[in-house]
Amino acid sequence: MLVVQKFGGTSVGSIERIEAVADIISRTLRAGHQCAVVVSAMGHSTDELLALAHAIDRLPDPRELDALLSTGEQVSAALLAMALQKRGVKARSFTGWQARIYTEPVHGAARLVRIEPDGLREAIAQGVVPVITGFQGIAGEDVTTLGRGGSDTSAVAVAAALGADLCEIYTDVTGVFTTDPRVVPHARKLSEISYDEMLELANLGAQVLHPRAVEAAKQFNVRLVVKSSFVEEEGTWVVATATGFEQRQVVTGIAFEREVARIALIGVPLHRHGLACVFGELAQAGINVDVIVQSVVQSSDVDVSFTVKEADCERAVEILGGLKDQLAYQGLVREAGLAKVSIVGAGMISNPGVAAEMFRVLAEADIPVKMVSTSEIKVSCIIPADRVEQAVQRLHAAFLEP
Amino acid sequence: MLVVQKFGGTSVGSIERIEAVADIISRTLRAGHQCAVVVSAMGHSTDELLALAHAIDRLPDPRELDALLSTGEQVSAALLAMALQKRGVKARSFTGWQARIYTEPVHGAARLVRIEPDGLREAIAQGVVPVITGFQGIAGEDVTTLGRGGSDTSAVAVAAALGADLCEIYTDVTGVFTTDPRVVPHARKLSEISYDEMLELANLGAQVLHPRAVEAAKQFNVRLVVKSSFVEEEGTWVVATATGFEQRQVVTGIAFEREVARIALIGVPLHRHGLACVFGELAQAGINVDVIVQSVVQSSDVDVSFTVKEADCERAVEILGGLKDQLAYQGLVREAGLAKVSIVGAGMISNPGVAAEMFRVLAEADIPVKMVSTSEIKVSCIIPADRVEQAVQRLHAAFLEP
Repeated sequence: MLVVQKFGGTSVGSIERIEAVADIISRTLRAGHQCAVVVSAMGHSTDELLALAHAIDRLPDPRELDALLSTGEQVSAALLAMALQKRGVKARSFTGWQARIYTEPVHGAARLVRIEPDGLREAIAQGVVPVITGFQGIAGEDVTTLGRGGSDTSAVAVAAALGADLCEIYTDVTGVFTTDPRVVPHARKLSEISYDEMLELANLGAQVLHPRAVEAAKQFNVRLVVKSSFVEEEGTWVVATATGFEQRQVVTGIAFEREVARIALIGVPLHRHGLACVFGELAQAGINVDVIVQSVVQSSDVDVSFTVKEADCERAVEILGGLKDQLAYQGLVREAGLAKVSIVGAGMISNPGVAAEMFRVLAEADIPVKMVSTSEIKVSCIIPADRVEQAVQRLHAAFLEP
Repeated sequence: MLVVQKFGGTSVGSIERIEAVADIISRTLRAGHQCAVVVSAMGHSTDELLALAHAIDRLPDPRELDALLSTGEQVSAALLAMALQKRGVKARSFTGWQARIYTEPVHGAARLVRIEPDGLREAIAQGVVPVITGFQGIAGEDVTTLGRGGSDTSAVAVAAALGADLCEIYTDVTGVFTTDPRVVPHARKLSEISYDEMLELANLGAQVLHPRAVEAAKQFNVRLVVKSSFVEEEGTWVVATATGFEQRQVVTGIAFEREVARIALIGVPLHRHGLACVFGELAQAGINVDVIVQSVVQSSDVDVSFTVKEADCERAVEILGGLKDQLAYQGLVREAGLAKVSIVGAGMISNPGVAAEMFRVLAEADIPVKMVSTSEIKVSCIIPADRVEQAVQRLHAAFLEP
């Protein structure tokens, strides 16, 4: 079996951890499998490099920032290759350009375009374990990076390009849980979860696996498993359609996100097509808008509410202030100190009462719901941040405990 | 004028230093010149990377060690490019592969083979300052490094490839001195020195400029100047034939080196051709042999003495022990705690009395001379390490003070 193994920052956070990772890879080889490895930068090294750049310039040149940040994975890849060789395992580090990982010509958050895997294949055929830098590629001769969490995407893309049988995402937790065990200590590890559910959970703030990686895995049908590099234990399989025990439950997991702010534009005249303009301008400023709720007040006016990260709120309000004349809205309301709590489950599609049940649970706990957003497999509620733990605990008890 | 400016590790040792270097480059551009820049890794970052590698393996894989160490210069090049852009100077970092710097396929101390400078030329033509990682190149698709001090060589090679008018080596001293000012406080800065003299001084332990870089500058006739990135002050020109004031003096400078050990093989039969074998085996073990003195005792036997670094002495003695039967030498003597002091000057060629004068000065100070080695432009004496400062001071007074 050809296995792509990805090790995140905490998994290679020290020399001791790198040695432990080399042991995991050695064991996989001894079990008769072939391996290709994708690594993140050691622990906080990306943050340290970022701090150096910001000491020079608050907005450093994006090309140079990518050139700088890409060194973090080069360090961990070279060190891991050394650790493998010490164990008698033939290994070779590959940077983005050496592995022929091509991206869009964009810096900071480039999307992968293609991988030319001949060099990697050749190494594997020679019994050499390629240790590939995650998070980075090239566009032309420029080094590009994929943005935070990009190493997960690199791993899935490498697995797809190599036609690997399996992609293992090693991290510092043992899998995907029904919710954050720090909030619900008896949260359960899922043995499997569908791509779609994982996508909702990943997008909703469960930081186990990057959404783009899940998307890519779904697109290329890569078998994915999330597991711990710290303890030997079965992880969580991410599959097309989950078939195990958990699927008999309507809700698979509960995700939440803190530091959410809500901005409401009151009385926006419909005929001006102003809304496209609002979200276009915010996107251009790099501000991610999450939940959007729109309601018609009169026949010609709408109220629009949406959420952004608290850190972006001030800037978003400034931008909207600049658009006041153009949009002709009547008022702007903002509210920080919010959180988003979401229930996710493929079973919801056939269970229309789930949203109502969620509102009931929150109402019984006197938790006010400021906004609601739904998809086929999730319901999200915006609530006060200081109530989020209670909300998660109540919802976990209602939906995920026997 | 097209100027190649090289900045060493202490010159880019912190964000403040990188900002200062960006100011130097900006001033050069404002003076109407074009620039290409070569940088070393920040301060002790190469040592830190080396320590990581050694924490994994005492003898890490050479390819991976190069992959690891090459990240140090990538960091400083990217940061310096950012600092230049902040000043409105167009700049772009180039790694070894991006700058098309090709070396022999050897790791750890590769020699440069060629540079294809079209990409660098194009950048310069567009008004962009290329900021090139020193110390590294590629062989095939592998990253290689040039060994310690390799950034000097990179700078000279880039200057030669671009046909630059001048190569400025910025360092933490203001130029080349008649000797180390820490030993002789009134040592004088030389306004110029010949390639050959600089080569002897560089080889003899004056750590201003790497010998390979001087060799390359001589070979390609690159105008070289050594100066400080910390203070604005005229540096020392390294030229084909020094013509200034100092050349009227016979001795240009005094170099010294501590931690020298002497090994003597007593009674080696001449007919066995054993000596080639001795030095071949030591070279293969990576042990640098410096001064070699051979004297015939009887018609068929020779005594051979040579010096190595103290750190290599134990290993050298081991290797020689293994060769005892083959070489049939009668005895082996070793002595650590030595130093080498050398006087250098192109004027010596026409002044045969200089060596004698050196011995007289040392004898008058009761400093025993263990070995002597001469070239056309230098005389080196091996003396006890605890007398080296006194020797340098006495020789400086005798040869370099009015």
